[in-house]
This record gives sequence, structure tokens and C-alpha cells, in this order.
Amino acid sequence: MKARGLTQKDILAAAKTYTPTGGRDEYLAFSSGGQSGQVIVYGIPSMRILKYIGVFTPEPWQGYGFDDESKAVLAQGRVDGKDIVYGDTHHPAFSEANGDYDGRYLFINDKANPRIAVIDLHDFETKQIVVNPFYRSSQGGAFVTPNTEYVMEAAQYAAPYGDDFVPLEEFNEKYRGGVTYWKFDDKKGRIDPDQSFTFELPPYSQDLSDAGKGASMGWGFTNSFCSERYVGGKDRPPYEAGCSQKDTDFLHVTNWQKAAELVAAGKVKKVNGSYLITMDQAVKEGLLYLVPEPKSPHGVDVNPKGTHIIVSGKLDSHAWVYSWEKIQNAIKNQKFEGKDPYGIPIIALKDALHTQVQVGLGPLHTQYDSKECVVYTSVYVDSMVTKWDYCEGKVLDQINIHYNVGHLMTMEGDSVSPDGKYLVALNKLAIDRFNPVGPLHPQNHQLIDISGDKMQLLYDMPLPLGEPHYVVAIKADKLKPAVRYKSGWDSRADKKSPYKTRAGREKVVRECDDKGECTTHVYGTVIRSHITPEVIEVQEGDTVSIHLTNLERAQDETHGFAMYGQNVQLSIEPGKTASTTFKADKAGVYPFYCTEFCSALHLEMQGYLLVTPKGYVAKGGTLEEGQKYTEADYKKQVQTNVDTQAVIDSVVGFITSHNFKDFPVVVALVEDATEQLGFADEARKKSEDYAAKGDFQNATLWAGQWWQYQVKTADLGLRAKTHLEENGAKKVK
Amino acid sequence: MKARGLTQKDILAAAKTYTPTGGRDEYLAFSSGGQSGQVIVYGIPSMRILKYIGVFTPEPWQGYGFDDESKAVLAQGRVDGKDIVYGDTHHPAFSEANGDYDGRYLFINDKANPRIAVIDLHDFETKQIVVNPFYRSSQGGAFVTPNTEYVMEAAQYAAPYGDDFVPLEEFNEKYRGGVTYWKFDDKKGRIDPDQSFTFELPPYSQDLSDAGKGASMGWGFTNSFCSERYVGGKDRPPYEAGCSQKDTDFLHVTNWQKAAELVAAGKVKKVNGSYLITMDQAVKEGLLYLVPEPKSPHGVDVNPKGTHIIVSGKLDSHAWVYSWEKIQNAIKNQKFEGKDPYGIPIIALKDALHTQVQVGLGPLHTQYDSKECVVYTSVYVDSMVTKWDYCEGKVLDQINIHYNVGHLMTMEGDSVSPDGKYLVALNKLAIDRFNPVGPLHPQNHQLIDISGDKMQLLYDMPLPLGEPHYVVAIKADKLKPAVRYKSGWDSRADKKSPYKTRAGREKVVRECDDKGECTTHVYGTVIRSHITPEVIEVQEGDTVSIHLTNLERAQDETHGFAMYGQNVQLSIEPGKTASTTFKADKAGVYPFYCTEFCSALHLEMQGYLLVTPKGYVAKGGTLEEGQKYTEADYKKQVQTNVDTQAVIDSVVGFITSHNFKDFPVVVALVEDATEQLGFADEARKKSEDYAAKGDFQNATLWAGQWWQYQVKTADLGLRAKTHLEENGAKKVK
Repeated sequence: MKARGLTQKDILAAAKTYTPTGGRDEYLAFSSGGQSGQVIVYGIPSMRILKYIGVFTPEPWQGYGFDDESKAVLAQGRVDGKDIVYGDTHHPAFSEANGDYDGRYLFINDKANPRIAVIDLHDFETKQIVVNPFYRSSQGGAFVTPNTEYVMEAAQYAAPYGDDFVPLEEFNEKYRGGVTYWKFDDKKGRIDPDQSFTFELPPYSQDLSDAGKGASMGWGFTNSFCSERYVGGKDRPPYEAGCSQKDTDFLHVTNWQKAAELVAAGKVKKVNGSYLITMDQAVKEGLLYLVPEPKSPHGVDVNPKGTHIIVSGKLDSHAWVYSWEKIQNAIKNQKFEGKDPYGIPIIALKDALHTQVQVGLGPLHTQYDSKECVVYTSVYVDSMVTKWDYCEGKVLDQINIHYNVGHLMTMEGDSVSPDGKYLVALNKLAIDRFNPVGPLHPQNHQLIDISGDKMQLLYDMPLPLGEPHYVVAIKADKLKPAVRYKSGWDSRADKKSPYKTRAGREKVVRECDDKGECTTHVYGTVIRSHITPEVIEVQEGDTVSIHLTNLERAQDETHGFAMYGQNVQLSIEPGKTASTTFKADKAGVYPFYCTEFCSALHLEMQGYLLVTPKGYVAKGGTLEEGQKYTEADYKKQVQTNVDTQAVIDSVVGFITSHNFKDFPVVVALVEDATEQLGFADEARKKSEDYAAKGDFQNATLWAGQWWQYQVKTADLGLRAKTHLEENGAKKVK
Repeated sequence: MKARGLTQKDILAAAKTYTPTGGRDEYLAFSSGGQSGQVIVYGIPSMRILKYIGVFTPEPWQGYGFDDESKAVLAQGRVDGKDIVYGDTHHPAFSEANGDYDGRYLFINDKANPRIAVIDLHDFETKQIVVNPFYRSSQGGAFVTPNTEYVMEAAQYAAPYGDDFVPLEEFNEKYRGGVTYWKFDDKKGRIDPDQSFTFELPPYSQDLSDAGKGASMGWGFTNSFCSERYVGGKDRPPYEAGCSQKDTDFLHVTNWQKAAELVAAGKVKKVNGSYLITMDQAVKEGLLYLVPEPKSPHGVDVNPKGTHIIVSGKLDSHAWVYSWEKIQNAIKNQKFEGKDPYGIPIIALKDALHTQVQVGLGPLHTQYDSKECVVYTSVYVDSMVTKWDYCEGKVLDQINIHYNVGHLMTMEGDSVSPDGKYLVALNKLAIDRFNPVGPLHPQNHQLIDISGDKMQLLYDMPLPLGEPHYVVAIKADKLKPAVRYKSGWDSRADKKSPYKTRAGREKVVRECDDKGECTTHVYGTVIRSHITPEVIEVQEGDTVSIHLTNLERAQDETHGFAMYGQNVQLSIEPGKTASTTFKADKAGVYPFYCTEFCSALHLEMQGYLLVTPKGYVAKGGTLEEGQKYTEADYKKQVQTNVDTQAVIDSVVGFITSHNFKDFPVVVALVEDATEQLGFADEARKKSEDYAAKGDFQNATLWAGQWWQYQVKTADLGLRAKTHLEENGAKKVK
């Protein structure tokens, strides 16, 4: 403690966050990666980052955007037919059941190109991308309704709905905002664009949303900035001046439940192939209202019961609390203070407001505690978090953060039953918090203990890649991720792959069409430690389509597949079938190999793609092996194997003499080891057959392979034995 | 402690690793990202990841592979004219001076496509990529000679040197390995391919290298596997059997110093445009020798004094220690046990070996301690690290890891003066160590305290992206990273950008060539919180080239720049000029905005690219502002500004009444705040000029802009005030 200059308080914080080997975090946080286009998963309270999930940006470690299956997902996200190779992810949202996180899906938006992605929490993979049919940007997504009926996505910077050029002189008439309700098909686990609808909205820059719940179920709330409809450029003052001049912007209140009924009744027309509820129709049907809100707000947050809504504006030191009951009454009584230039009724502030509380300079986003009425608001300019009571309207506590907090997040803090416990401040600037790593700094997520009356800073976590915008955290035990796929699985389409292959059934098929265009399909497999086939020969000009199935069942036994010069990089987790297709446009020699260090002989998990020149005729030479083996070599290898088997037997003896069945990890290792030993036996038989025929070259080699399987068995057995020793296994006989 | 189920030992480990807010790590580790194609930077002992550096794979957060400047770096790495969009990074190496890390550069290889990248540790950016002119894969790079004279890169899977197809039947005659010595130009900070040379080597799969030092200065050591020259495929046993049949492979010993003299003397010929020392020439000149080494090794590690070399093979339970003195004597006395099939002299094992020590099943890689003779070897199959004495040849201690360690790393452990203290085990499997996140698991780097006699496990760190292969760690105070660039800097070319722009000099220039192809160049700037110009109009079919200079000087004030539909995403750190070039192939409206949350009005940092259709004639309407302002609005805004100035003055009063000059962070903030206040004054003058003319629309808007600068000033002032309060500043008057 002294050696490292730590205080008593630091040691307490260390004890509250340190997670020893094998320990589990209580919560998993899912963070947007900002313009990295990914989702970042980290544990709370250890603040260790567990995974970057590829969403809008290709990522080779995962094979995302490299294998054919995930390329198909990214292709769904094309804009104007163009591949988009990044995203600006902003707001992740969990799927919900009765307003509680159900741990099944995560949704996240791309601001730069208005898109929503669906991530399956069964395998932490991106399964779908949908492109908004109306917008040209979208900061305000994703937010889900209490039973994941819909995923909300609002426009940000107004633009014409069509593809045509419209001059800025026609901004007020032809530029539009909007809020889209994407229908989620719970059975398919996918968004259904055909059943989704959009509210046309004025060219105010719509921003974040939140879905009503409980008392306000069926409604949605979307805030906005720049309701001045200011346009910068040339010698005019910049947007930042023109967009912050009015004291208030507008909170948009939309009735999605009634809107869905209209859609179902066939009363809504399609524009750009998608349902669009025009402002006129929305006003006529009583689906759309405006309420003044503090200027330049970010974050609109409905309380767990759905009775209150909190909004704060970065240029007002107050957080404003709205009463849903008051808003409802105003709507019921048709009591409005007027209409905006587009004819949308405006509810007067006094007819909607519960209270305003001074929380600090630059309040931004509010999250709820498990304690009723208690909330936390991030305060950007003052670089602090304010804990306050929105029922009584009083400040309870404040804590400095480092520096300039954007969003904040409490555990399950936007569900109907927040957990309290921890808060994370998503600071936009780190400045001097960490060792310097050049002009581009990491972000700083600060973990704060909120279990007591006073907030306490526990931990500073640097974000090494991306600029997280918002994070959501779920109780870890709500997640049930898989460790393997069913054998031969296309994980992106979530079904058996047509290219799945079983051990011993590997094949190469060449197909040519009428025009003489040929495709060589390789149906292959990977397993510790070889790729089958190890040599692939194709003809120059062929399209090559290699489909590899990982035959492993063991946890964490992923294999990779990379090839020289072809941008081929697959990640093939246990059970998965992944494909890569490319044009063999140049004759030559292309080594390939496994990219995941999977076993002691991983480096030897290799092969060659041979692309023969057009019209090539093999010279018919035979493959001359660099090394020749004799009967003595064979006998020596067999002796090694017999000795190795004795080691294995002693390890097996240790395991079976202990209560290993009480240790699921060991049971899995034993299963895997048993399988490897089976393979060893197959190799042994081949070896003996060749020896019987007097072919000691092949006999020796197969005896070597037999030994390789023994080494893998020993590896597993030793791991199991150590696990039993470290975890106090008992002798059973 | 009890609440979280921690033991006394855990608390000690927590105290040894926990780093409170603002604390610094003692070492920075630079890890390969494996097939993610990046470099990962993390702190030791906190094990917090600070940065992913884009190297071979485009990464949008950094703008890497998105801005024109970094696209030019990636373009250097094209293979056969084809863009390669990932890499399989394996071995990072620091630049050295007299065998010690000097903290200037980091080198790393790509295995999949044999390339080496140069990263400048001044700004943690990739500056150069070179493509090996001979190989088709390269696991064994990068390793540097003691004064960074050369960067070593060995071939892995043998292939023909030329582009032609060569059948496997000619493997022994026409497939080749090799080891390349890339010349590093210290003045330019770049590799000089023209002065680099390669040793032609047999088609043994060369693997890792290490440069001699001290006693062995001028020599290089490269190991290999599959010296059986086995080829798998069809019904033959797999590579893993055929490549592990012999008891020994070959350590290659090369004399680079003498080779460099030959090159300088014009005695080496160029092949594929690069110097190639053929095996015949190398043997004739006495530059190349082989020594038997344990089969399937990985890692060859020269001790700090250069007197001993340790190699271990994953299929032999011993680590083998060679004596350089013995090897030298054998060479001097021309005492060989024979030649390999390619005529290379083989030094007998007994004439090279110092000792063999049984360290466990599957030993892989060895690193040195600060204590003489003490080393650590990773043991893959046994899942442990063995501490042993290579002088005496005895094991000192062993510790279990979780699971299956590949490389390991001690602090500055491959320099001439290792620091000891910590060891990191780079485990290839995590299995059950962390909360599950789907079939694809994170890697697990375990931090081990080696300061005492017994090794102690401190921390498990998950790697969330990529599969690190090897890591090097440097004392943090050897690094002097910059926080900003000189204004208008092209960071990739390391010189002033021809497109740099100063405040007020922004311009748009359209240039057309003889064929009528036109390019619109935008010379723009970014600063809190606006992009200049905010509206860009170009004609359909134009090439658009937008060059943005970040005018900020403040630490961590990066701005981003994203645009709809065009794959535009720039990261523009303070001082940097970054460019994006694309074809405006479709008329329409393309919003753009800042992607780094830079200030309270970040969302308003926006604009539009307008692409007018061919032949478009403006209708000549005027821009009608959504909001009109009166003299009353103007006066109200001015009053706000006066009130805000009072707040600023009080904060300034606080700061200047304390010893703020003793706090560098505060001095920087005050500089930044003073600059912002200067901007506020400029806006105030504009505002007053318009008011004098009775133009209250513009007067109000500029008064708003004046206020925006005040808000930024207040933000900085409050941050400074908090810093002084938290760090015990004293009142000075």
C-alpha cells in the first residue's frame, strides 16, 4: 500500500472492484463504441472489457465482414447500394419484457447513416441491419417499448425525405425530421421493416427518445434541439449560435399504440416503401403533441412507473420534471397554448411541469436509482454527477468526475426496476487521467458506488478504442450465452448451413455455368490441429468458395483461417460453418493457416491453395518427402506413444479417483479428452495397418499423428487435474 | 471484503494492481492484436487497456484507413496491387539503442501477408508498411538488432520466391524460406527497403528470431519447424504429424554484420528488386550455420549479455541452453557434423549446448529476469510458468496459469537490462475465467508478481478484441508522447500538410482539368463548436476533397468529421490536418457533423454537403430563418452574457488567488480558457456592430455566439477550479 502510495480509501475501492481469477462480475455493461462502429462489453464492478462486438464496421478477429455469412449482414446496411464500412453507434438498448430487461437482444443505432442493428445475446453476434427509409442521420436510437413491440429511432439533422437535391432555401418546407417505430418480430428475433412506421416531424433536430411505461404505456417521448430551424454557412453565425438562441426546444409526444392501430387498419400510406404518418394525419388523429423543454437538451428519461419524465438542457442549470398526469389532462381537455408552424398542438409548460431543480451547469442525462424518487443527472460543464430527489425537488449529493460527463448509467437504470448499486459516468475527456498515449486520448468511464448516501468514486476505466456515447447494464445472470453452435451452423442466418461438412465427408466440387464461369466449392473441416483439405488446387480464373466447419465441441476451441493475398480471415467457433468466396485471379501459391493458437501444434495447422495457370498440365512428378522413415523410426515412435499413454493413464487415474463429476469444467475437459483419445486410436489403427504392409513411411507418420492426439489428450487431462487440485477436489476411493 | 468473498491474498493482489484516478502505470505494454491487425497498449500493473492502434486494419475511430493521409500508409501494404484490409500481427519490437529500449518506435509484422509496420511512439500512429519481396507468409517478425540497425523478419510457410505457380512436387527444389534484415533509417524514422537484404534459406518453416547482442553482436538467430519438409494433403497424414516427426529442427545462425558489408561492397545481387544472399553465397562467405534444436520450437531468446541462447520445443519437456562461445569456436574451427541437403554446415549439438533443463510439458518461450541467470519459460501443455536458473540448470519455482500459455513477457525482458518485477502470461485459452460472452472467448493475460522468490498471481485481464501473440513492455517514463501536433500537420507523412488552413482563411476551390473532370477542394477548419465551412456546395460528378485543420491547442480536444453515405470519418487531433476525398456521384443532401463529443454544443457542430444536379440553376430564393429576433431578444441575450461574465470573473478570481501556476494541468486550462474568452470578445464586437446598424437578427445571433464562447470558458474555468480544490492548492493572497 505504501509502496504504491495508496490511501485507505483507495484500498477500499480496490476491494470493491478487484475480481480474482475465475471471479464473475455482477453486471455486464454494453456500451456503444461511437465512431468505431462497434459495441463494447465490460464487467461491473471489475471494469474489465470482455468483448468488442462488430456491428457496422468490419472486424477481422471475429471474421466480421470477412466471412460470406457476415458480409450478408453488412450488405443489408448498404446505403444507395454502397457498402458502408463503419458506423457511429450511439445508444444501445436491451430487449424488454414488461419493462424489464430480458437478456435476449441488444439494439443499437448508427448516427452517420441512419441504421439500426440487432445483436443476439445468445452468441453476441450482429444478426441484422436495417436502413431508415427517410432520414440522412439519426442520433436518437435505439429505445425500446416495454415489450419490445417497437424500437424507436429519431432523425437528427433534418433533410429531404427523398433522394433529390433540395436547396436550403426550402429548408422549412421540404426538410423534415421524424421518429420511426421499428416493429420487432419476437419469434424471428428480427426487425420487420414492412410493419414499421414513421411519424413525419418538423425540421427540428430530433434527438433522444424514451418509451412510456406503466402509466404512460403506449406513448413515446422524443426531444429535440435547434427548433429555431437555423441554418449556418457562409458569413452567418455558426449553428451553435443559431441553434441555441431560444430558451426552449420541443419535447415530442407520440402515441405509438394508436398509430399501430391505424397502420393495422390500413389507414396509413406508404412513402419510400414504408408507412409514414404525416404531421397532418398525426395531428388529426391526436397522435402528436409538443411540450416546451429546456434548450439544447439531451436525454429524456421516463421514471420506472411511467408517471414522470425528466429532461435537462445543456444550457440550462435545471433539470425539468414533467408530470404525465398533467400532460394527459392537457391532451384530454385539448388545452393547448397554440400550435407550432406545422400545426402541431403545443401544451403549455405550466400545464405539463411537475418541478424544476437546479442540478448544475450543463445537465445532460438522468438515470434512476432503486430508491423511489432518487435520480442521478450527469452535469457536463460542472464536470459532476448530481444525486437528487425528483419528487421533492431537492439535491441530495454531488460528486466531481474527470472530466465533462456525457451520459451516465445506473444498473438497469432505465428499466421498470432499477437496481441502484453502481453508477458509471461516461466522461468525454480523460486529459491527464492515464499514462499518455499520443494526441488521441482514451475516454474515461468512472465507476461510482451509489449504495450509500454519499456517492463514492471507485475506478477509472480507459476506453482504448472508440468513443462510447451511451451504455446499458444488465444483471449478468439474465444472460445465457452459448459456448458452441449446433454442428454446421450458419450463425448469422441462425440455421444449418447448406455448406456444413462432417468429419470424413470433406470434398471439393467444381461447377461451371453455361458461360464457362466456374466455381470451386471446398467443403472442409477444422479440428485440433489440421485443416481438411490441406492442399486445395483450383484453376486460374475460378471463383473459389471455401466452407469450413469447426468440428470441435469444446469451449473456447475456436479456429481461424487466413490466406495470403486474398483478404481471407475467418473466425470459426465450435460448431460454426463459415465461408469465404473470392476470385482466384492469379496463378500462384497461396499458403493458408489457422489464426487462433488452438493447440501445441497450432503452427503446423497449415496448407496451400494452388492456383494453376490456365491450360496447366501437371508434369506428373511425385511428391518427394524431405524425410524418410524406417522400421526403427516406427518402433521408436510407437515406444514414445506407449510411454505417453502411461502418463495419460496416471492422469486419468488421478481424475477418476476424485469427485471430478462435481466440477462441470472438468467434466467438459474429460469429454474432450475422451474424444481426442478416440482420434488417437483411429490414427493408431492406420499406423498399424501400414506397418503390417511394410510401409514404414506412412506407418511412422500415422504413429506420429497418433502421438499428436495423445499430446492433446494429455493437455486436457493436465488442465483437469490442475483444476481439481486448485479447487479442493476430494478423493472418492 | 467479505461481501465480495475475497481472501487476504486477493486484497494484497488488489493493492498491488489498483490504480486510483489520475494514477500512472509503471510500464506500458505493447501487444500484438493477432488477426485484428492492430497493436494493443495497456498499463502494468493496472492492466487497463489504453489504446488500440490501427496498423494493418482500417479503424474508423482513429480515422485510420479513412482519411487520405492514412490510406496512403495502408496503400504501401498492398499485395499484388490489391488493398489488404487486415493483418495478423504477431511480434512487436521496440527500437533499441545499445540494446536498451529507447522508446522511439515500435515494429510489428503481419503473418498472413508478410509485412512489417513502423509505429511512431511520439504519437502512437502507424507511419509505414513494407511488403516482403520474397515471402508468402511471415510469423517471425519483428526483432531488432541492438541499435535498430535492422529489423529481422523470417519467412514461415515455404513458397516460391517468384509469383509463378510451382507444383508441390518441386517443393524441395523451388520452395524457399528466408530471413530478411530490413534496414532502418534512424534519421527518417522509416525502413529503407533499398538497403535491406534477405538470406535465402531452405524450405524449413522459419519461425522466430532474436538478434545477438554483447558477445554475439552482429549475429542473428532464427529457429524453424518442419525441417522434415513435409507436405500434407489428400490421404496423407496431416502436417501436424509429418512436421513433428524428427527429434530436432534447425536453429539458423546468420552473420548480418558481415552480410551488410558484402551488400555495401556491391557483392550481393538483387532478386525481385531486393538484395538476396543465396544459400551458396552465404555458405561460401561463412555467414550461415545450422544447429540442431528441440523439435517444433517457438521462441529463441538471447540472454542480456549475449553469451547464451535459449530455445525450447513444444514437444520436448526441456529447455535447451546454447553457449555462444561454443558455437563461435565450432565456427572458428570449422567443426561441423555435416551439411544439410542445401549444403549448409551443421554444428553438432554437443558442440553448441550448454545445458538442457526439464521445465515441463510444452515449453514455448523464455524471458529474462533482472537477476542474473534467472529466466521464466512458458509451458503450454502443463499450463504453467517455470522459473529456472540457466547457469546452474535448475528449476526454481513453478506457477499454474489459466490456461495454455503461449508467449510470456517480463518487464524489458528481451533488452540488455531486464527489469524483473512483473511477468505477463499470454494465455491462449480463457475458458471459464470470465463472464461468458458467447462462443468466441476473450484471451486471458495474467499478471504475475516476480519480485519475490515465489511467483504470485495478481490479475486476470481479458483481451476484448484480437488474439495477442506477443507483447513487449517498456518503462513508461521512457516514452514522451505528444499531446498535439504543430498546426496544419500531416501526421502520417510527418510534415506540414499542403492543405493546412488557418482560422479565417477557409476557402473552397474548384479545379477542372482538360477533360472537364473537376475537383472541389475544401480548405476548412474545426474548433469548439463549429466546422468552417458549415455548408459546402458542389456539383454532381465532382470529386470532393475536404481538408480540415483542427485549430485547437488544448489536450484531448479532438474533433471528428462524419458524413452521410460517403464512408467519411476523420479523427482530427489538435493541430492535425486530415483530408477525405470522394466522388459526389449523386445529387442530394448530405449532412455532416463532429463525431467527438467536444463541448456542450457538440451536437450543433454540424453542416451540409449539397450536391447539386448537373446543370442545376439556383432559383434565387433567400434563406428564411425559422426564428426572428428583436431588439428585446438582443438585450436579453446581452444581459445573460453580462451575468455569465460575472460567474467567469468569480472563477478567475478563485484561480488567480491560488498558486495555480504550480499545477501544469490548470495552467493549460487557463491558457485554453483565455483563448476562448478572446473568441467571445470577437463575437461580442460583431454583435455590437450589427446592433449599431439596427440588424437585431444578426446582433442577437452573434450575441448568442459570444455566450457560447463564454460557456466554453466557464467549462474550462470550473474544471481548473475543481482541480485546484481537489489537489490542495494554496491561497496566495
